[in-house]
Amino acid sequence: MASRNPSKCPMQDEAERYPRLCPGGGLLIAWQLKGKRVLIVGGGPVAAGRLVNVLDADAILDVMCPSSGLCDEMRYRIYTEKVVSNYVDANYDEAHPEILDQYDMVLTAIDDVELSKKICYECRSRRIPVNVADVPPECDFYFGSLIRNGPLQVMVSTGGQGPKIASQTRQKIQAAIPKNVGQAITNVGKLRAMLRKRAPSAEIGARRMRWMIEVCEKWNLDEICTMTEPDMKKILDGWETGYVPSYKEVKGGLPFLPSDVRLKKALFGTCPVVGYPSPYLTGFAGVLLGAAVTSAVFLSRGLSRSS
Amino acid sequence: MASRNPSKCPMQDEAERYPRLCPGGGLLIAWQLKGKRVLIVGGGPVAAGRLVNVLDADAILDVMCPSSGLCDEMRYRIYTEKVVSNYVDANYDEAHPEILDQYDMVLTAIDDVELSKKICYECRSRRIPVNVADVPPECDFYFGSLIRNGPLQVMVSTGGQGPKIASQTRQKIQAAIPKNVGQAITNVGKLRAMLRKRAPSAEIGARRMRWMIEVCEKWNLDEICTMTEPDMKKILDGWETGYVPSYKEVKGGLPFLPSDVRLKKALFGTCPVVGYPSPYLTGFAGVLLGAAVTSAVFLSRGLSRSS
Repeated sequence: MASRNPSKCPMQDEAERYPRLCPGGGLLIAWQLKGKRVLIVGGGPVAAGRLVNVLDADAILDVMCPSSGLCDEMRYRIYTEKVVSNYVDANYDEAHPEILDQYDMVLTAIDDVELSKKICYECRSRRIPVNVADVPPECDFYFGSLIRNGPLQVMVSTGGQGPKIASQTRQKIQAAIPKNVGQAITNVGKLRAMLRKRAPSAEIGARRMRWMIEVCEKWNLDEICTMTEPDMKKILDGWETGYVPSYKEVKGGLPFLPSDVRLKKALFGTCPVVGYPSPYLTGFAGVLLGAAVTSAVFLSRGLSRSS
Repeated sequence: MASRNPSKCPMQDEAERYPRLCPGGGLLIAWQLKGKRVLIVGGGPVAAGRLVNVLDADAILDVMCPSSGLCDEMRYRIYTEKVVSNYVDANYDEAHPEILDQYDMVLTAIDDVELSKKICYECRSRRIPVNVADVPPECDFYFGSLIRNGPLQVMVSTGGQGPKIASQTRQKIQAAIPKNVGQAITNVGKLRAMLRKRAPSAEIGARRMRWMIEVCEKWNLDEICTMTEPDMKKILDGWETGYVPSYKEVKGGLPFLPSDVRLKKALFGTCPVVGYPSPYLTGFAGVLLGAAVTSAVFLSRGLSRSS
């Protein structure tokens, strides 16, 4: 038991320092199905929904259902889209549970409660994750209300307690997610790839990661959504000095020389703020100005003396 | 293969009728851990985070880590909160992988990459779901960015592509979720329990479900959040006639007799709209009014005749 060795006296405020436990939920996870084999037993609308779920997760999918039991969507997925790897035109055969051995996950959506129970039992004895639609005790995991936007996935779950409220909350969440957040994630991925090309050394991986995090902190989500490829080039100009140009600096009215980065560098040196002249440039301009003013003074004196 | 028997010619617009597949994600699910045994190998901050995840899902949790490797939070969970079922003050012993047999899930968060790989291998050969922190190929599932509000759980996942954007999106979602949505789900659960008490027959389960859905459709999320117990009683008064009183009808200025439902019933009968008088009452009032007016007419005639 955990009660042994309670030598250290806990501080009074310790309880507030750590997140409070909140039991009663499920473990929300993103199960990895890429290249894994999944069996769906059933061919109705619920089975068709499961098909979308597992194919969106890159599974290799088999469907088992007599063709008379296929709904229109399932027919479309099997015969037109051809996204099902192996369609078995038959009922599940209780006498041959060994066919389950080849699968990494089994989902059933059939009306036969007794048969569902048997499939669930055979899966569990093989430690194959199983979900029996609408029968919570026969589910190793539940599905939730989903939102998908490119690489972004959101699941809303109430553990079956309030399905209608879950879907209402899903709508509110959907409205709150920027339409182009998928684009933002893609943009950040693109910027990261460009940075890796510009500074490929494996040793500075941690520095690259810090710089990328700073980009995502300095640019908010809406700003990242608007990031174009020319913008990315401008941002990357800050890399060598460890500076991340802000949205305003890149997009705002601050003057930028034309896109030729090499020319800009030759003129400006390593300028920490893109769009601002470097100390080298202003120093050089100062020397010229000083020389010009002094020359003018000397010349005018020379002129008055000579007159 | 799925290509056999393509006899039916698919309709042109069929592709638009069904959700478009969007591969490249994970399968977002709520894994059920109630009463299941979970092992966490490791005692640092990442392990402490995993501990919260699995205990919030009602798991029976063992932790394996030499006491010298426990972070403050882990110490607090083990010795003060005593939420860990069995704390093993030792490193994982490669020579005895059979200890894994007793677990339904294994999570590791240790720095030793080689040892992680071995644990992962042993788990997979036993078909025990495993997650090795920070090593995606050794994970059967990933964790995401989480929001919890009572029975409501939300997970935001970018499949590791944009962790910073995932957490920013999580903030936007958090802001969009009504603060008291947990209360709303609890309220709906309470109303359902009260309805079951009022109409307990198992045969009308479907009718109860339809009525509950209608409540959640007629009352929006914000309105459900404000639902008090007296409100619930008023709403339930609609049950017998299959009517769901709206938020305005229950909360609005429409007159309600004091809370004594029995008195109200005796007076109003089964009034389909709470707050409106029933046809019985108006009919009865009409009889009284008619009698009174007729009496008045007769009396005045009687008076004028007698004068």
